[in-house]
Amino acid sequence: MFDNDNFRPGNKLNLKEKSTDYSAGYASKEAAQERTEKNIDRMARMQDILYAQDKYALLIIIQAMDAAGKDGVIKHVMSGLNPQGTMVHSFKRPSAEELDHDYLWRYTKALPERGRIGIFNRSYYEDVLVVRVHNLIETQQHLPPALITKNVWKERLEDIGHLEKYLYRNGIAVLKFYLHVSRQEQKERLLARLDEPDKNWKFNAGDLEERKHWDTYRKYAEEAINATDTDYAPWYIIPADKKWFARMAISEIIADTLEAMKLEYPRLNDDQKKMLAVYRAQLLED
Amino acid sequence: MFDNDNFRPGNKLNLKEKSTDYSAGYASKEAAQERTEKNIDRMARMQDILYAQDKYALLIIIQAMDAAGKDGVIKHVMSGLNPQGTMVHSFKRPSAEELDHDYLWRYTKALPERGRIGIFNRSYYEDVLVVRVHNLIETQQHLPPALITKNVWKERLEDIGHLEKYLYRNGIAVLKFYLHVSRQEQKERLLARLDEPDKNWKFNAGDLEERKHWDTYRKYAEEAINATDTDYAPWYIIPADKKWFARMAISEIIADTLEAMKLEYPRLNDDQKKMLAVYRAQLLED
Repeated sequence: MFDNDNFRPGNKLNLKEKSTDYSAGYASKEAAQERTEKNIDRMARMQDILYAQDKYALLIIIQAMDAAGKDGVIKHVMSGLNPQGTMVHSFKRPSAEELDHDYLWRYTKALPERGRIGIFNRSYYEDVLVVRVHNLIETQQHLPPALITKNVWKERLEDIGHLEKYLYRNGIAVLKFYLHVSRQEQKERLLARLDEPDKNWKFNAGDLEERKHWDTYRKYAEEAINATDTDYAPWYIIPADKKWFARMAISEIIADTLEAMKLEYPRLNDDQKKMLAVYRAQLLED
Repeated sequence: MFDNDNFRPGNKLNLKEKSTDYSAGYASKEAAQERTEKNIDRMARMQDILYAQDKYALLIIIQAMDAAGKDGVIKHVMSGLNPQGTMVHSFKRPSAEELDHDYLWRYTKALPERGRIGIFNRSYYEDVLVVRVHNLIETQQHLPPALITKNVWKERLEDIGHLEKYLYRNGIAVLKFYLHVSRQEQKERLLARLDEPDKNWKFNAGDLEERKHWDTYRKYAEEAINATDTDYAPWYIIPADKKWFARMAISEIIADTLEAMKLEYPRLNDDQKKMLAVYRAQLLED
């Protein structure tokens, strides 16, 4: 009933053709939540082995329009993981120091160590999204002007592809989710932030400004996804109008990805096993 | 039945006088686990507000002998928190770069941001524990020899006290746990790591070496705790022979500490409230 491959972008993604409220036959929130719980248990079990083995890492990237549910996915899917093996980074407006570096610098600094699961709440994909929509490459980033050619976005997408290949070659698996909400659903969620006092703090007037650029964001997102969807760093387009479905789908795909990594607890060789006997004798005499 | 104050070190801590297997009347693991679950829910609720308010942070320091259960506390007490607001750092052997800095450098770099809960699995207290036991201050740290006087440990404890006062003055609450196990219990846990294949990876031959210095570690730990136990950065000595009791006690103290911080969701002033009406109108017209 739920097939991960249904959520891959395909050869040439057109987001308008992708449903935002598909739910793979899950009729109720309760049934999806039950499956989410099971997936979280699977994730936690594999995380233990990932940590013990200390060879691979998993980097999960979450991209979306505002109010699409990124924070909620992290809270509801990643709580239950061992925080000692989990690191979340939320990327906001870059600092002056960060702008003085190449644009990937602040992201690579935050990559997960081996044995860990890293989560990027927004990522270097913002450097071909918000930076492109608002032309921040000219007004904010300190690049030599001669390098800002008409091919600059294509070049950035190539740089990003190269980074992800490099990560793959170093044992860091990359998994990318695009939370796909409708413009109408975003409107309702922003209104809820205005209407519920405990949600007011989440309301950001800038979100209204960004909303005006909806179509441009969508177009650039499609371009980025089409250019960087690979077997070793795949994108998944997650229908996100129903929060409970998005959480279920993401937990399912993460658990399956971890299980496919063939992780295993470190095994000792014969010499090491002999040493264990020596240590045991030492301890028993103590 | 459980009173946090019972676990404070008192005027002059003597660890030998403190029980390692006290359980505050909890007869069974199940009863303690039920309470731990409730405490974790309280922690998660307060963490939401801590994050929204974005003014305070909580730094939790966990110190202990090897195999006392530090990793288990983090896994079983801190899973359930939102990883977006939780950052764990495990401090191991310092790198060459870290040794070229002052000894507090690597710890302050890892402090939690406002709105977050930071957990230090080992901490700057190792710089008056393992460093002192093995005289690494002379053999490994690159200090000017003239500064390594007979008062150096007293001076370090003073530096640490000053750092913790500074953190308090910046809204970062510090909570310190010493997991107190018996030498016999440590022996059994190390033997279990040798006997169970899935635990072998946790066995570290160095732990046997450290075990020989048990009394010296205990003495230096007492000295450190006595010098740095304050109202704003309190120590708690947690009986840790029963893992389920240590987890319950720590979750209880963390939840109580968060509740005592009087956290609250940000409230808007009148001007901001007027703006909400403007935004609402804009959205409804969209």
